Amino acid sequence: MAHIGIIGSKGRMGQALQQAIRDAGHDNTGGVDLGGSASVAAAQSEVLVDFSSPAALADNLKAAHDAGIPIVIGTTGLGAEHHAMIDKASHNIAILQTGNTSLGVTLLAHLVSEAAAKLGSDWDIEIVEMHHRMKVDAPSGTALLLGEAAAKGRNIDLAANSERGRDGHTGERKEGAIGFAALRGGTVAGDHSVIFAGNEERITLTHNAENRMIFARGAVKAAAWLIGKDAGRYTMQDVLDL
Amino acid sequence: MAHIGIIGSKGRMGQALQQAIRDAGHDNTGGVDLGGSASVAAAQSEVLVDFSSPAALADNLKAAHDAGIPIVIGTTGLGAEHHAMIDKASHNIAILQTGNTSLGVTLLAHLVSEAAAKLGSDWDIEIVEMHHRMKVDAPSGTALLLGEAAAKGRNIDLAANSERGRDGHTGERKEGAIGFAALRGGTVAGDHSVIFAGNEERITLTHNAENRMIFARGAVKAAAWLIGKDAGRYTMQDVLDL
Amino acid sequence: MAHIGIIGSKGRMGQALQQAIRDAGHDNTGGVDLGGSASVAAAQSEVLVDFSSPAALADNLKAAHDAGIPIVIGTTGLGAEHHAMIDKASHNIAILQTGNTSLGVTLLAHLVSEAAAKLGSDWDIEIVEMHHRMKVDAPSGTALLLGEAAAKGRNIDLAANSERGRDGHTGERKEGAIGFAALRGGTVAGDHSVIFAGNEERITLTHNAENRMIFARGAVKAAAWLIGKDAGRYTMQDVLDL
Amino acid sequence: MAHIGIIGSKGRMGQALQQAIRDAGHDNTGGVDLGGSASVAAAQSEVLVDFSSPAALADNLKAAHDAGIPIVIGTTGLGAEHHAMIDKASHNIAILQTGNTSLGVTLLAHLVSEAAAKLGSDWDIEIVEMHHRMKVDAPSGTALLLGEAAAKGRNIDLAANSERGRDGHTGERKEGAIGFAALRGGTVAGDHSVIFAGNEERITLTHNAENRMIFARGAVKAAAWLIGKDAGRYTMQDVLDL
Repeated sequence: MAHIGIIGSKGRMGQALQQAIRDAGHDNTGGVDLGGSASVAAAQSEVLVDFSSPAALADNLKAAHDAGIPIVIGTTGLGAEHHAMIDKASHNIAILQTGNTSLGVTLLAHLVSEAAAKLGSDWDIEIVEMHHRMKVDAPSGTALLLGEAAAKGRNIDLAANSERGRDGHTGERKEGAIGFAALRGGTVAGDHSVIFAGNEERITLTHNAENRMIFARGAVKAAAWLIGKDAGRYTMQDVLDL
Repeated sequence: MAHIGIIGSKGRMGQALQQAIRDAGHDNTGGVDLGGSASVAAAQSEVLVDFSSPAALADNLKAAHDAGIPIVIGTTGLGAEHHAMIDKASHNIAILQTGNTSLGVTLLAHLVSEAAAKLGSDWDIEIVEMHHRMKVDAPSGTALLLGEAAAKGRNIDLAANSERGRDGHTGERKEGAIGFAALRGGTVAGDHSVIFAGNEERITLTHNAENRMIFARGAVKAAAWLIGKDAGRYTMQDVLDL
Repeated sequence: MAHIGIIGSKGRMGQALQQAIRDAGHDNTGGVDLGGSASVAAAQSEVLVDFSSPAALADNLKAAHDAGIPIVIGTTGLGAEHHAMIDKASHNIAILQTGNTSLGVTLLAHLVSEAAAKLGSDWDIEIVEMHHRMKVDAPSGTALLLGEAAAKGRNIDLAANSERGRDGHTGERKEGAIGFAALRGGTVAGDHSVIFAGNEERITLTHNAENRMIFARGAVKAAAWLIGKDAGRYTMQDVLDL
Repeated sequence: MAHIGIIGSKGRMGQALQQAIRDAGHDNTGGVDLGGSASVAAAQSEVLVDFSSPAALADNLKAAHDAGIPIVIGTTGLGAEHHAMIDKASHNIAILQTGNTSLGVTLLAHLVSEAAAKLGSDWDIEIVEMHHRMKVDAPSGTALLLGEAAAKGRNIDLAANSERGRDGHTGERKEGAIGFAALRGGTVAGDHSVIFAGNEERITLTHNAENRMIFARGAVKAAAWLIGKDAGRYTMQDVLDL
């Protein structure tokens, strides 16, 4: 049984985390929210799970550091300055930061990377995702994560090879491009497909999330796994031993 | 057995038309190409099929008109001036003009229109298509045709309600919007999906083309159907009696 | 605001119905369960919703009849004797019985019927569904409902034209057959696709349910719609005016 | 440039092979058909490609053996006795035997095996395929090949864990089962999906073949690769270095 503290416990993700901790037979050692102190939660926990906001990251890292415990960071919208903070803190504590805590997406990214490495550049790569009507950015963070996995497999730079938001006279597809398309509507929790389109055949690798509980379950699994690990920076792929 | 003349007979579509005419047991009364005269083909035919170019439209309409025979127009890239020509010519001869001669797409457009009319505005409409890597424009003409079918069912204006090429901070989906996304890669002949995304359920209407023969077959079926019809402007929906 | 009584209120569907009644701003006039009396619920309601069991059907119909109110029946596993009871009771009260209360599936069945009627018999019809690992029967009731819609569109008898559970040396597909395939796994709430496979093109009509709330919402919508209707037997298609 | 001999050159696959050899810039050193002698083709070739019939296997192996050249065997419907012949011959020559020569399917099988190994047994595996209306057996050989890949990843026996042709009262899904479903219709060249259905999430790995040329191209690539290899038995996975 792991003692897990939640930062950002009242939001939709926080409530999903509470349920996932219960479902897995772990102990929720208290949450903290806007205006509260992460160090209180840290004092009673073996690991922290942070789905709060980039603005709170410095305080949360300090709380984990001072308590000498690891932290899982699932906060989205991190910039270069946040990653620098995480790198620095990871010299002293174990930190797992990820844009998607789902075990399924983590495995999918691994398969995408492998397929991209094995299939020649005459297999065009396209990534299409669908999310609910309230989502305000495109492509999704997970689509970009999958794009990075594909680019890594191909040993190319993603930003320099992306085709996003095709509309109008686009010209022929660039050789080696990775295309992105975003669908929005309804209450879709998150569907992602990576298409490898070759000559007269296609391979499509798809992940469907039925709801956000999968992200909470993956985060809790990662948190329990992270307890006792050496200082350093980890990924969900480490949790799955990929 | 219908006597069918092809305008634009040497291109890939022209060759597919020749095979479709043979397969259906009709008679290919000769084709005409760049530099040739459509009136020669018209003189020997009961109906013309035109997959040439917008620039040749005026000549082709004149050839059909002078011979007093109907014409199927599958040429893409027509502008307002071309539609005006077609409208005028249709006072004297039967003309079927369409952006997609496939029977499957024609039926799909009909179903899309009906679904859009029956499902309330809390069902968001998204259209996604995939075509081969050589296609230079997005969305495809067929995607726009399906968008028009959806807009007609909703009794809204398509252009005023389109969300195309989402990328970056898009904000929430607009109420009543019809979204478009374009995938490009490999040798895909043409896949189209219209998604109706409601609250916790989705309806998806999809068409997959295995190759371009379906467009040729549909055009030949339309041509045979058009013989003997009154002057006027017809659509593929009329051929299928939708 | 409609006053709606639930028969079978404690099960998973009963709880979903309670939420759907609240969400729609209606009044839940009390539920009844195993051992309870449907007539108590009927006395306080304008309409009943029954998702209990075939064994309770006779009592439930009597309660609605005695109270002079309509009833929505979503109970599955009904036999010929149950349908006979419903037919008889419908001389005196309005009854809507259906195998699937989702608005999306109802519309899909309508589209399937229309597509089957318009597409010639050279378009083969296949129905594939996926449900969670606990489902004990195959194909699903909804798959059969969609099969009936297709058969009706083709004006053929479903049972005489079904190909189910293909395995081993099956021989070529029978002309005019309607095929069924069942996938089972995970926690899938219910996905259904009807495929029309023609020569070198395919139309696929798909419904995805994210969870069972859509069935509850559809049942509540049907219940509110049924209040005040003449005696007779109704379907979900009537609710959607299809 | 490889000198490739085709056994079974007049059938649809044989003609596709001839084109694939031309497209790849290799030399077609002559084909042999029913009644002909494989040894004639072998004498002029560096490698043989055999898509004929199980009955001709012994002669074809002997021809390759006597000429001291490798052979690619894509013949389907092989029994245990044929595999024993191949094993024996592989002591003296290089032999690549496979149920599917497509590069895409080969990679897919590799990804399936890896996913099955990494995902716990709470991820249910289902395999669904669609082929044209003339196909006489179910599931397809490729579906079984993918099932073997999944079983290998899970370290279980496929035959003992298969659920095929679900129909009627099936009971709940067996733990660890691998399910198969077969769709038939139209002119579909071959679609295969392997679904991993977990708790509230799904991973689906799909291959779509647009036509049979992909099998010919893969076979030709395998043949060129096999020239000069040591005696032994090889697979398509070796060609892709998986």
